[in-house]
Amino acid sequence: MRPDLPMTSIPTIAELTERVDAELHTVLDSRRMPLYRMMSYHLGWEDAQGEPGYPGARDRNHGVACLVACHGAGGDLDIAAPAAASVELTNGFSEVHDDVQGGNPQRFGRDAVWWTWGPAQAINAGDGMHALARLAIFRLEERGVPPETTFGAVQTLDEASLALCEGRFQDLEAQERIDLSVDAYMEMAARKTGALYACAMRLGAMVVGAEDPVVDAMRLCGASLGVAAQIRGDLSELWPEDDDAAPSPEVLNKKKLLPVVYAVEKANIHTKRRFGDIYFKRVLEPDDVTSLRQLLEEQGARDYCRGLVARRREEAAGALDAAGFSADGAAVVESFAGALLGD
Amino acid sequence: MRPDLPMTSIPTIAELTERVDAELHTVLDSRRMPLYRMMSYHLGWEDAQGEPGYPGARDRNHGVACLVACHGAGGDLDIAAPAAASVELTNGFSEVHDDVQGGNPQRFGRDAVWWTWGPAQAINAGDGMHALARLAIFRLEERGVPPETTFGAVQTLDEASLALCEGRFQDLEAQERIDLSVDAYMEMAARKTGALYACAMRLGAMVVGAEDPVVDAMRLCGASLGVAAQIRGDLSELWPEDDDAAPSPEVLNKKKLLPVVYAVEKANIHTKRRFGDIYFKRVLEPDDVTSLRQLLEEQGARDYCRGLVARRREEAAGALDAAGFSADGAAVVESFAGALLGD
Repeated sequence: MRPDLPMTSIPTIAELTERVDAELHTVLDSRRMPLYRMMSYHLGWEDAQGEPGYPGARDRNHGVACLVACHGAGGDLDIAAPAAASVELTNGFSEVHDDVQGGNPQRFGRDAVWWTWGPAQAINAGDGMHALARLAIFRLEERGVPPETTFGAVQTLDEASLALCEGRFQDLEAQERIDLSVDAYMEMAARKTGALYACAMRLGAMVVGAEDPVVDAMRLCGASLGVAAQIRGDLSELWPEDDDAAPSPEVLNKKKLLPVVYAVEKANIHTKRRFGDIYFKRVLEPDDVTSLRQLLEEQGARDYCRGLVARRREEAAGALDAAGFSADGAAVVESFAGALLGD
Repeated sequence: MRPDLPMTSIPTIAELTERVDAELHTVLDSRRMPLYRMMSYHLGWEDAQGEPGYPGARDRNHGVACLVACHGAGGDLDIAAPAAASVELTNGFSEVHDDVQGGNPQRFGRDAVWWTWGPAQAINAGDGMHALARLAIFRLEERGVPPETTFGAVQTLDEASLALCEGRFQDLEAQERIDLSVDAYMEMAARKTGALYACAMRLGAMVVGAEDPVVDAMRLCGASLGVAAQIRGDLSELWPEDDDAAPSPEVLNKKKLLPVVYAVEKANIHTKRRFGDIYFKRVLEPDDVTSLRQLLEEQGARDYCRGLVARRREEAAGALDAAGFSADGAAVVESFAGALLGD
């Protein structure tokens, strides 16, 4: 061993991403029907003509969350890899359907699946990924995971899939409401984003045979990080890192992002009228976005949301502390939290 | 026992339908979110306002197929009921998405889910039913089914769900092709309709501990009956039982029904031109449908398809014969085949 290396080497997020990707390949590569080409496209492996080498950036955060929990619990990544692929496919199914539902023409800087193949086939692509996620997780057995653990893993995944559907339902419903509260938003976020990250981290520890308190700590950690990621995403929609970026379609289409929900809820009648003046339009224009941002900052909505992200991240770390994690285990989770929440 | 009753009483299709329905209620009744109201609506329990008592006819053929196989294998219906509910929910998910994909405004004589709640929420309703189908099947364990059997049942369901997605993909793709062959149609039908009926009947026997040859006979029986049901459905679209019924939207929209696929494939150049004259239009008119029906009958397409339905039905009965079924077991399957294929 070279003396300049630490005793334990923590896998990097890039390495874990590659590991998830390799497992996804083993799930998909044997499948030759054109149905699976849409999945390969969505996963960023191919362009619409089926040619490899699409250069776009594409995270595997859900699968990585699973492997992070596995490593954190002292497990072998090979064992948890099928669960990681499964959670990633579940997230992919939800993304493909979200794009149809929201009419988003773009995903990861190129045409969304439905924009390329039409909404009807995109629904099939999502349904197929949903079914494939399940078949992927059964591969746990080949890695020596005991049947009762695999069984529990499949149920965990199914419960998370259903929670995800409930959250997506609430999210769409929220767009029709004029009185959305921060509480209702948080309930939606817990289902729409929290549940699948909670499932990912829970599975990562569960399948390598971690003790119940460790599995539960990972679940709590994932739930907190997931909600933090959703709020972080909402902040980025309103205040993109690149100051010169064009306002996002979600902002222009008046999506009920948490800063807006919070600011409208706490606004007095005078401020509510100012929001009304902006939101009166069917679609916002760039100038409206400037006014909106200013109003939100005045109301303390940006700071409030940043505070929530920080608090959820502390909660995530706290859950691991309480379960008595090793420094190495905590470090890999912390490194993932940084990648997920962008610091 | 009353002397006028036979020794063994064969459950009627109506009784089995009620049994599936009761199990579906136990899966859904505890769920209160509005997401589940769309499912209750699709299942025919409620109207769009959530009031009970919708009078429309609504079969439970997939669930019934499962219970038929269970009874045929000499099993207890209570044990197979969770599997029956699960297959029925899988079929429901597919129907809800099919209606969005095909833009069908009506289903079972009333507005389709997407027509009532919009396509975005209908996608969520279908996704939720897909996830719920899985959770429903885990209830097998509560009925005393051994874990390894439940495990096999879940995998059987997942494989059928994926085959269903593949079949729906092929069905949509077929609509874009001008050279669809009977072989390609049959491959699509085997996946789109055969796979889920095969799964239903296989599960019905498997979960009550039937021997492998019985389970396999039920699978073959379901696969044959499913394909027969699809062809029977195509015939009904073109030649409805009620002679005065308006032509179906599928016919007007030039859906590639098997009689059409067969007739076009076997037509000589002169007859192909006559089809071309009819199909030249974007949407057919009632007069075109009359010409189409006549041309199809001339080409022997109606008789050919009726022959296929009869042959598949014989195959289904043959599979049971080969496995040495009791007269009672064969009778209940035969009664189901009659209900499914409409005699």
